[in-house]
Amino acid sequence: MKVGIVGATGYGGLELIRFLHNHQAVEHIDLFTSSEEGVVFSSKFGHLVNIADTPLQKIDDETLEKFDVVFTSTPSGVTSELLPPLVGKGPKLIDLSGDYRLKDPASYEAWYGKKAAPPEIIQQSVYGLTEWNADNVKNASLIANPGCYPTAVLLSLLPLLKEKLIDSNFLVIDAKSGISGAGNKPSQTTHFSEVNESFSIYKTNTHQHIPEIEQAISMFAGVDTAISFNTHLVPMTRGILTTAYAPMMPDVTESQLVACLRATYEKHPFVRIITDVNNLATNRVRGSNYCDIFVKVDSRTKRATIVAVIDNLVKGAAGQAIQNMNVQFGLPQTTGLDVVPFFI
Amino acid sequence: MKVGIVGATGYGGLELIRFLHNHQAVEHIDLFTSSEEGVVFSSKFGHLVNIADTPLQKIDDETLEKFDVVFTSTPSGVTSELLPPLVGKGPKLIDLSGDYRLKDPASYEAWYGKKAAPPEIIQQSVYGLTEWNADNVKNASLIANPGCYPTAVLLSLLPLLKEKLIDSNFLVIDAKSGISGAGNKPSQTTHFSEVNESFSIYKTNTHQHIPEIEQAISMFAGVDTAISFNTHLVPMTRGILTTAYAPMMPDVTESQLVACLRATYEKHPFVRIITDVNNLATNRVRGSNYCDIFVKVDSRTKRATIVAVIDNLVKGAAGQAIQNMNVQFGLPQTTGLDVVPFFI
Amino acid sequence: MKVGIVGATGYGGLELIRFLHNHQAVEHIDLFTSSEEGVVFSSKFGHLVNIADTPLQKIDDETLEKFDVVFTSTPSGVTSELLPPLVGKGPKLIDLSGDYRLKDPASYEAWYGKKAAPPEIIQQSVYGLTEWNADNVKNASLIANPGCYPTAVLLSLLPLLKEKLIDSNFLVIDAKSGISGAGNKPSQTTHFSEVNESFSIYKTNTHQHIPEIEQAISMFAGVDTAISFNTHLVPMTRGILTTAYAPMMPDVTESQLVACLRATYEKHPFVRIITDVNNLATNRVRGSNYCDIFVKVDSRTKRATIVAVIDNLVKGAAGQAIQNMNVQFGLPQTTGLDVVPFFI
Amino acid sequence: MKVGIVGATGYGGLELIRFLHNHQAVEHIDLFTSSEEGVVFSSKFGHLVNIADTPLQKIDDETLEKFDVVFTSTPSGVTSELLPPLVGKGPKLIDLSGDYRLKDPASYEAWYGKKAAPPEIIQQSVYGLTEWNADNVKNASLIANPGCYPTAVLLSLLPLLKEKLIDSNFLVIDAKSGISGAGNKPSQTTHFSEVNESFSIYKTNTHQHIPEIEQAISMFAGVDTAISFNTHLVPMTRGILTTAYAPMMPDVTESQLVACLRATYEKHPFVRIITDVNNLATNRVRGSNYCDIFVKVDSRTKRATIVAVIDNLVKGAAGQAIQNMNVQFGLPQTTGLDVVPFFI
Repeated sequence: MKVGIVGATGYGGLELIRFLHNHQAVEHIDLFTSSEEGVVFSSKFGHLVNIADTPLQKIDDETLEKFDVVFTSTPSGVTSELLPPLVGKGPKLIDLSGDYRLKDPASYEAWYGKKAAPPEIIQQSVYGLTEWNADNVKNASLIANPGCYPTAVLLSLLPLLKEKLIDSNFLVIDAKSGISGAGNKPSQTTHFSEVNESFSIYKTNTHQHIPEIEQAISMFAGVDTAISFNTHLVPMTRGILTTAYAPMMPDVTESQLVACLRATYEKHPFVRIITDVNNLATNRVRGSNYCDIFVKVDSRTKRATIVAVIDNLVKGAAGQAIQNMNVQFGLPQTTGLDVVPFFI
Repeated sequence: MKVGIVGATGYGGLELIRFLHNHQAVEHIDLFTSSEEGVVFSSKFGHLVNIADTPLQKIDDETLEKFDVVFTSTPSGVTSELLPPLVGKGPKLIDLSGDYRLKDPASYEAWYGKKAAPPEIIQQSVYGLTEWNADNVKNASLIANPGCYPTAVLLSLLPLLKEKLIDSNFLVIDAKSGISGAGNKPSQTTHFSEVNESFSIYKTNTHQHIPEIEQAISMFAGVDTAISFNTHLVPMTRGILTTAYAPMMPDVTESQLVACLRATYEKHPFVRIITDVNNLATNRVRGSNYCDIFVKVDSRTKRATIVAVIDNLVKGAAGQAIQNMNVQFGLPQTTGLDVVPFFI
Repeated sequence: MKVGIVGATGYGGLELIRFLHNHQAVEHIDLFTSSEEGVVFSSKFGHLVNIADTPLQKIDDETLEKFDVVFTSTPSGVTSELLPPLVGKGPKLIDLSGDYRLKDPASYEAWYGKKAAPPEIIQQSVYGLTEWNADNVKNASLIANPGCYPTAVLLSLLPLLKEKLIDSNFLVIDAKSGISGAGNKPSQTTHFSEVNESFSIYKTNTHQHIPEIEQAISMFAGVDTAISFNTHLVPMTRGILTTAYAPMMPDVTESQLVACLRATYEKHPFVRIITDVNNLATNRVRGSNYCDIFVKVDSRTKRATIVAVIDNLVKGAAGQAIQNMNVQFGLPQTTGLDVVPFFI
Repeated sequence: MKVGIVGATGYGGLELIRFLHNHQAVEHIDLFTSSEEGVVFSSKFGHLVNIADTPLQKIDDETLEKFDVVFTSTPSGVTSELLPPLVGKGPKLIDLSGDYRLKDPASYEAWYGKKAAPPEIIQQSVYGLTEWNADNVKNASLIANPGCYPTAVLLSLLPLLKEKLIDSNFLVIDAKSGISGAGNKPSQTTHFSEVNESFSIYKTNTHQHIPEIEQAISMFAGVDTAISFNTHLVPMTRGILTTAYAPMMPDVTESQLVACLRATYEKHPFVRIITDVNNLATNRVRGSNYCDIFVKVDSRTKRATIVAVIDNLVKGAAGQAIQNMNVQFGLPQTTGLDVVPFFI
């Protein structure tokens, strides 16, 4: 399998390289960038000396057509223009940006503040939440790989919402992310001395992942809801933990929630239901494609706390993208992704 | 003023020393501990060489009686026995542990799993949330200094609950703390290699600060409510950020919330209402006695997000304790506490 | 291949599990511990849920004899007693502790303060610095896997000392390590709040790795020397960087040093000679078995600075141990170790 | 006393504000910047809300002349042009940049790669290593405040070199700094995700503090020497630790070194001689103006290890600058600087 990575210098791109290096079905990887053509990749990224000493290539439609898979890991607003000419040509397209996730172009433009991709291409794209959409992923030409926060939120809430075990009318989701989620571009808000040893909230109720989450809840659980959703920055590089609060539906018990989650993910290798809260933390999934889920009911308030942890760069980006590629090519989902989390 | 600190080797004790060193009304500080009698304090804590070279003293009622103020910064379950003989004797007593915060001994015993202090002593104690209880603090013999989480939660929510601007029937509080909140005793959950670069949740819906918060909401805002309250560990040493979610009462606007907060704290030097979310982070209050509050209404859900940040060891412990001491002795509240936050 | 790991709960043990999970020649792993028999491993280490759900077993000679390889990753002073009965029985023994590294029992007892292993067993053991001792490793029954600091120091200095390009009479080595080097046992010196955001020196001129380094310099470079060697704690989990200073021998140039290093390691997949200092950092090798080396000559002082970085838990422990296992079993050295460093 | 701070938005400037806020002799502070005129300072730096709500002012000679003291905390190459017209006018000038430290303009131009200040102004300037130059500081119009690394190195080495207790012919200094030393400008090398959890070396043998150290050793100890000096980045915000290695002069003992250091600094409040290495770490001086020094002799190699720790932003910048101001105005050196280090 020949793979092209567009946006190789971003953290999503670097993680794709990390995992594809050990993917048995991948024999060749080319790296593309909007600038820096000709630069030897490992001269920019010392960890890749002897591993990726190839030059960066200029993005070019004709070249990209010749790959079996093209991953695009670019800022929003890039692939809405780049990918349409490639759809249905040769390669499977897996887009890690947000440009194809929202089915409603007006919603995209409102939340992203950018021009949406062509509606007909958006419609063809398949939302790549693998555990919930593998049948469609299998035949898709263009996959909209889910956002990092939505992956954690949806995997933990969809089963409970679909089975009507929790009340969707008061859904509060408090999300926390490591700083790599902000990408590789230096700024004051990612400047070590100013974010180190500090915890903060950002984009109060306005994160662009809100409509993505609500759309997927509607799509997969059949429920229309407006969520409260806030995002926070944790002074660490990787990891997302989402804490969701929802009233229980009448007469539902904690063990029913656990049973529902277990039943849903029984055959899914990357979702683990954790029962001991001491075993739940972002470093228990770091570097891996796992999503760990924990649920607890507060008998005083009759509300459930539903917690999920993922590595934002793996299950929240590159890992899930490769998981989708595996599905498209009929490989076991774990191919190239069966690694032990980097606990310490 | 002569000051005794019981539990000097804990982080609350160390912070008391840090601030009292620059407190103009304090002329003498003695340090007490349950063990290690005679050990020169600075031999244990190198940062205090030349500053606190005094030996640790054995805790002894007669000795303690001679101080003007005695701060007790001990684990829960210690001062319930230690302080009763001292009440009403000589010194003002300021207890930083949780032993005198809950008015209902049964509640204390249920949440703390320890024997409560004598009911009559609990009744005499005054809850030292300075901004809300200064009149009672002024004349108190025994102050129950508030917990770290309750301080942030109460300062940010009380004005809005009291004025009935937000709905107390669905109050979700998602709290995050740096690791110093766990104290100075080593354990696997504070072992650097296992908590560094990891974010986790702990004590889901069972933190002992829950009844303290609910009691104070009842006491100061006149509202009885059961809160959802979860606590998380942030891989940093200091700082608490609490994110609260509440439905707005009908026809209430965001600017009313801001106005209410501003009016409440207009004359209180340590509470700042922040309007630019980029200026809200735990490092903006680190090392200081400030509590910064930010509020934002989500027009989609008609719910308010109310955020507070404090330094858990200062406004959440030693700083507020000294603020209470200042009130008791008729000093300006800022005496010894007027420092610039340690931003970087 | 059936593998037993003694001391599985330590960080060396956990890293062995992480790599052996993806080692194609390993079909079975059993975990042993001196206590906690019967405890399901993943109940202690949440990151291993679904990966290592096996119970910990009691250490027992007869059981251990049946493995093809036994790794011992225990504190010093354990395998000096545990391993002698197993030598020459069935399994290849790879000891990650310091008990078999020093050939002189008196030296061991002086530097470690413990009773040495039986002299005849020490003599049989082979020092497993793979790049320098593969021929002996191949046939060894018992391998003394090198210490973390010595690995970095020796790989970077041996070629230059052996070729007499630098002067061994004034060799200063300033070493820095992440905190995982202190192991998994909580203590005040690994307590998050007290080591976070702090850099310190420890064991000034008295680290037990000093005689190990000097012995190997004598053994592999034929030079007897007494080194200056200090160790420092860096507030991060993984990684070692060693900075060595040595006068240049007359008329030697920087390019000769680089050429010597390149020639030495040309066919060794895990040693990389780095020429751009911006590409040299512990996170460029994190999680991998690489040792990166950089050399620079100061024309003002005619002294060389020789820098090496490794991941202390991989090339400095578990990774090199598996590399040695590969050599013993005639496998390519990279088997199971060919991973991309965990840069971010 | 009226104080002006030029370069207020840098970390040196922020620390000046932090300390001057509690300086009893300072009644007014104005803030100057090369851009952003009119911007309310606290709108950029949330920690200063209610503390520094004044607008930034344009740098202007006539305005600056009216202050009693002007601190300049700017990048190198700025004050070489800015300050000459102000010298001898009204204000005491304290320059935290490197522009006036090197007496030889050619050396400045070689090491800094910028045009030097006018030679006659350089000659008038006084090197503000307070403990060693207070007499000259007292009457200086223009103080060249020492660099961060030189402060730690010089305070620890000067007494031993001056008394000829250690050999200056083989002086190796291995220095480590927190990331705030790189200033407040974002770049890839200060981008959280890429420096967090990583230790690196930079500017091998080429740091511009080398000639400053050698000049001061010549000036204060009367010794001409060429040092080996390398600098490293520690993944923490504040703190410098320098480890120096030097052969002992014949028959000199460790206790002589300690005695020499103690005698030298007996009456200097900010230098502490530490004898227990466990009490030596950057967090033992963090946030304070202390320089802690530790010395140990290796009996095997007859070499001394001399270690110093400071807070790079305090004793290495703003703190020492204020200490110099105190000397100039006849105040006790500790005025405004007598704070307890921020240990945790």
